[in-house]
Amino acid sequence: MWPWARTMSSDLPFTDCPVPIVETGEILMGHGSGGKLSGQLIERIILPAFRNPALEPLADQATLSINGCRHAFTTDSHVVTPIFFRGGHIGELAVNGTVNDLAVGGARPLFLSLAFILEEGLALEELKRVVESAGQAARRAGVQIVTGDTKVVGRGSGDKVFINTAGIGLLAPGVELSSQRVRPGDTVLLSGTIGDHGVAILSKREGLEFEGQIESDTAPLHDLALSLIDAFPDIHAMRDPTRGGLAAVLVEIATRRGVGMAVDETAIPVRDTVRGACEILGLDPLLVANEGKLVAFVPPEGAESVLEAMRRHPLGRDAARIGHVTDRHPGFVILRTPIGGERILDLPFGEALPRIC
Amino acid sequence: MWPWARTMSSDLPFTDCPVPIVETGEILMGHGSGGKLSGQLIERIILPAFRNPALEPLADQATLSINGCRHAFTTDSHVVTPIFFRGGHIGELAVNGTVNDLAVGGARPLFLSLAFILEEGLALEELKRVVESAGQAARRAGVQIVTGDTKVVGRGSGDKVFINTAGIGLLAPGVELSSQRVRPGDTVLLSGTIGDHGVAILSKREGLEFEGQIESDTAPLHDLALSLIDAFPDIHAMRDPTRGGLAAVLVEIATRRGVGMAVDETAIPVRDTVRGACEILGLDPLLVANEGKLVAFVPPEGAESVLEAMRRHPLGRDAARIGHVTDRHPGFVILRTPIGGERILDLPFGEALPRIC
Repeated sequence: MWPWARTMSSDLPFTDCPVPIVETGEILMGHGSGGKLSGQLIERIILPAFRNPALEPLADQATLSINGCRHAFTTDSHVVTPIFFRGGHIGELAVNGTVNDLAVGGARPLFLSLAFILEEGLALEELKRVVESAGQAARRAGVQIVTGDTKVVGRGSGDKVFINTAGIGLLAPGVELSSQRVRPGDTVLLSGTIGDHGVAILSKREGLEFEGQIESDTAPLHDLALSLIDAFPDIHAMRDPTRGGLAAVLVEIATRRGVGMAVDETAIPVRDTVRGACEILGLDPLLVANEGKLVAFVPPEGAESVLEAMRRHPLGRDAARIGHVTDRHPGFVILRTPIGGERILDLPFGEALPRIC
Repeated sequence: MWPWARTMSSDLPFTDCPVPIVETGEILMGHGSGGKLSGQLIERIILPAFRNPALEPLADQATLSINGCRHAFTTDSHVVTPIFFRGGHIGELAVNGTVNDLAVGGARPLFLSLAFILEEGLALEELKRVVESAGQAARRAGVQIVTGDTKVVGRGSGDKVFINTAGIGLLAPGVELSSQRVRPGDTVLLSGTIGDHGVAILSKREGLEFEGQIESDTAPLHDLALSLIDAFPDIHAMRDPTRGGLAAVLVEIATRRGVGMAVDETAIPVRDTVRGACEILGLDPLLVANEGKLVAFVPPEGAESVLEAMRRHPLGRDAARIGHVTDRHPGFVILRTPIGGERILDLPFGEALPRIC
């Protein structure tokens, strides 16, 4: 899905550090990062051309009303490299990614399309593994792949396999999850550890081995998401922190909704192996993509029951309360650091980890 | 959409000519052609992994029933090169292509997703033109682009712009168009001239100029399609002859349905300029992609009124009755040639015109 459009760094109130040059006449890797350049591209080029009420919220999924039925509709292209990594395949990632974009909107995922762009010379054996793992992921998520497409491009015009998935889900009456409902007082819950997916991809790509094997967390979240709605139907919003990581979700909502967020960095679960790898690689786990986690914004009276429901679910065992939404410092996410200080959480302009999903 | 799976050349009854080697361990350009290699890929690798009743017909669109509403759902990736050509842009093509896959199923197109895979270094000015033309095409077709995605890959891992579109349309009660309903006796109608799109792309790509300017016929067909259904609701099937051309539509249905088709080659409208260009380029116009034409299979009692309705519509002015479905020579399309002979119309194994859409 399109990440939320974001304001530019000039909105930062108390900095006069030099900022990177972002005016460019061509596409940079950073335009695909889920960071500020992505937001700029969407705000300046894409939104003006397509503007309509269903697109405008730039949510993970569009909500459509057709003949009285309420549907969620979403799409994502997957260009991850390598296509096989510890804990998953590009095929599985593509299915789960679209299932999750529907799930965090509160929809029950039903149908997917699946379109391949293949590079000439790809081994059929590799394609077969990808296709089979996509089929398994669909069965696991209870969705049907009902339509698709295959295109082939010459060597050097693609990179093995790109997969686009689009998905349709059904919204139950009364379910109204939207980042627009997030408000001061909401508790911020996170369903588990962060950074696993991005670090798994990067370590495979760079040929690094870390002790304790870091695996992608790719998983379908619809069952977890629906169980949270069952536990407390008035959850305000859910998001899955993929490209741009947990930071992107928090900063986007703070910026767009004009609310502040106070987050306790020590409360954010990160595996020791992932933390160690991030230190070696110079990455902030908060900025690293996840593929099987969700963040929920819940009114305080529902927070405990949603947290309990998360922890009861196999995909939410490590769930934690990580902070709250506040009317102080509107537009900014303030992290309380492990040494007791505070820092503003901001997004990079460009690309820390290209082609992570 | 996925082209129908096709039987292999060994099914040809009266040939012992040498056939090309089609057993390969890797992806060839021909796997994306809409020809026999495409069919083999889908039948051997894709269908077994995803098998379900909505996918199985391998139609241009899947028909879904959600809470009592009947929807059509389809997807296509567009990798055409060059991205700008006489008569259109990749953005327009992507929107029209998905609108048309819904239209030939008898659905009213409502909502599209649009996902870009951009190559690092693409000029933002070019992207802007593509995005704007996609927006214009959507407005012209009366559809809303409600969700999307943008990914960026490094130089040499993509080729400027690839666009995936998925679309949702609404099927009116009682509309049942399906290639499975085609039967002996049906009249075959074609809405206009063939070959324009493919020849326009190829001549731009190869830097050829032909007298009389050949333009892509890219156009949204939903209004034409719905007017035909109004004129005679019991049309058995409609298809848009894109990749693989008119030949692919006729041969696919003949093969899958086990019916014969008798087609009068002289009745098929082809512009003189396109015919001339095809002669120079060594192409058969029957195999060349179209992006604004449809083929209808109509019971004989409805043929005249559907043909009249086609000709009344601006996109069907050159419509023609080109043949009929027969129970003679089941599985084969027999062309009556201009010199009075007959020939079997067959599909190439591989790729005559790569990256045409």
